[in-house]
Amino acid sequence: MSGPITIALDAMGGDRAPDIVLRGADIALERHPGAKFLLFGVESKVAPLLAQLPRLAKVASLHHTDEIVAGDDKPSQALRAGRGTSMRLAIDAVADGRADCVVSAGNTGALMAIAKFVLKTLPGIDRPAIATFYPTLRGESVMLDLGANIECDAENLVQFALMGDAFARSVLGIVEPTVGLLNVGSEDLKGNDAVRGAAARLRGGLTPIHFHGFVEGDDIGAGTVDVIVTDGFTGNVALKTAEGTAKLFAEGLRAAFHHSPMARFGYLFARGAMRKFRERFDPRRYNGAMFLGLRGIAVKSHGSTDAFGFANAIGVAIDMKLNGFLEKIRADLARLNTAAPAPQPAAL
Amino acid sequence: MSGPITIALDAMGGDRAPDIVLRGADIALERHPGAKFLLFGVESKVAPLLAQLPRLAKVASLHHTDEIVAGDDKPSQALRAGRGTSMRLAIDAVADGRADCVVSAGNTGALMAIAKFVLKTLPGIDRPAIATFYPTLRGESVMLDLGANIECDAENLVQFALMGDAFARSVLGIVEPTVGLLNVGSEDLKGNDAVRGAAARLRGGLTPIHFHGFVEGDDIGAGTVDVIVTDGFTGNVALKTAEGTAKLFAEGLRAAFHHSPMARFGYLFARGAMRKFRERFDPRRYNGAMFLGLRGIAVKSHGSTDAFGFANAIGVAIDMKLNGFLEKIRADLARLNTAAPAPQPAAL
Repeated sequence: MSGPITIALDAMGGDRAPDIVLRGADIALERHPGAKFLLFGVESKVAPLLAQLPRLAKVASLHHTDEIVAGDDKPSQALRAGRGTSMRLAIDAVADGRADCVVSAGNTGALMAIAKFVLKTLPGIDRPAIATFYPTLRGESVMLDLGANIECDAENLVQFALMGDAFARSVLGIVEPTVGLLNVGSEDLKGNDAVRGAAARLRGGLTPIHFHGFVEGDDIGAGTVDVIVTDGFTGNVALKTAEGTAKLFAEGLRAAFHHSPMARFGYLFARGAMRKFRERFDPRRYNGAMFLGLRGIAVKSHGSTDAFGFANAIGVAIDMKLNGFLEKIRADLARLNTAAPAPQPAAL
Repeated sequence: MSGPITIALDAMGGDRAPDIVLRGADIALERHPGAKFLLFGVESKVAPLLAQLPRLAKVASLHHTDEIVAGDDKPSQALRAGRGTSMRLAIDAVADGRADCVVSAGNTGALMAIAKFVLKTLPGIDRPAIATFYPTLRGESVMLDLGANIECDAENLVQFALMGDAFARSVLGIVEPTVGLLNVGSEDLKGNDAVRGAAARLRGGLTPIHFHGFVEGDDIGAGTVDVIVTDGFTGNVALKTAEGTAKLFAEGLRAAFHHSPMARFGYLFARGAMRKFRERFDPRRYNGAMFLGLRGIAVKSHGSTDAFGFANAIGVAIDMKLNGFLEKIRADLARLNTAAPAPQPAAL
């Protein structure tokens, strides 16, 4: 670790806030002993919890606010609501350099709107995207966008590919990540204008990306590529479909083991193996959606996660900081801009 | 069963055709002893197989053709290729009333293009859609479109809802099926113009449909609604994502049971339960994608399925015929057209 890292936390975001936020920070502190925390929230609710966590209390400072972004606030509403919400204050802390990253389990749309407004997008990026890790047959991959951009054109998708590539290289440590565009088939003519246009540009070699080509839905779980790029509508549906399928499978498995006395007996022996299996696919392990394309690090935790899950979201933010994600994506974008054919001066 | 049913089979479609087609028909015959088959394919390949299946041979007639639609033929190419392919002849048999339905494991795009050209769409339907069953926490549901229509407007989605509703009532036997529109959230303002427009019309009560509202990706596995309606891009990605997740889970489970001698020992006792579990999620059980919106029954089998899977695709086609799917959807469309406010004559 290179020096201490400071994490701004929206203590009031999430179904079980501030409890999961503080307990999550305490767990994260175990893994990252150098971390410091700025907590933004209602003092009367946060302070008693903090008092119970002396290890965290030593490295955390509490900044009181009564204002909270509600789970059903519209993004525009939350943005206008003013500068005093716990979410806004936590993001402000990143913008003015007091914190290295921000984590919130609050309203996703509001968090994206405020983060975009306060932190701004990187030069060369039109729209930020939401990315996540997911487990595959080959390990872990990253997918974006997951819902920030419902409709995307080819240029948006190319920018998402750049962001996903920089993320995979910095945070996942993959030297030359493969990038795939999610589509309904692998042939060049498949899909809509946006994916075909993006593929043409990514194949054109104007970017440093190792472009695999089109991938399909089953390639997500197969881990065919390291980065899957798609629009926010499709990505959101795909991610939630995978979650629903995992739940269906888990329930079927539970029912199978309860099916007969013999199966229940067998379970006693397979218990350890089953625990490992559950751990591998534990959604809390993959908690933490990264907002990419901003001039700062912002991570969204699932609203209904627990302390363990929230700690993982904090871990993602720390990893992005320590692995220099922002520096890598800035360097890529600068290189691209330099490499682009400069406008020729008119002949004198 | 009401009288004999005749099924036209493209004996040459699929990775392991004609073997899986004939063996599949033989299995289907066991379940539907009244069925008769018209087989279209290369006599020198089909006849020897048929000779090995005396039960099937008794109720099947073989119609020779040398022409085959290739797996990588473009739909337009297959359509122009002429009237002599095994796929085209099988569809023709439905169009001219010699068969009640057609089943093929061949090229999906070609099958849809030829079926649409030969059978025509139903009055009131602009575009046919591809539908499938899938397992849920609550039993079984149906989803469409799965890839026939990459870009859809609100009117297309409303028509898909009508087709899915008629299918669920006739084939699944659900009295008042619930219909959901796949989206990225449940609030009215979520999504793109197409889903918002379709939702407004389905809420408006102009259709007989019991409209649940928007559903999300995880509602697919949860079985929140009986019918999930979406465009072909999203539906294709969602279905394949679910397949990929199931594979990932199955592989994780296999690895867990091989993890330790104790787990392997436990598996011996849980084996029967595991078999039931696998059977429940066996993709072959859900083989058979229905082409809805045509003036005839056409079912597409997965190209890489086996005889058991192909038999299930035949079973789907038979169910559609025996449960009067075409009559139900025709009646619905007629009722809608009558109910629609008639253009008012201009005042004299």
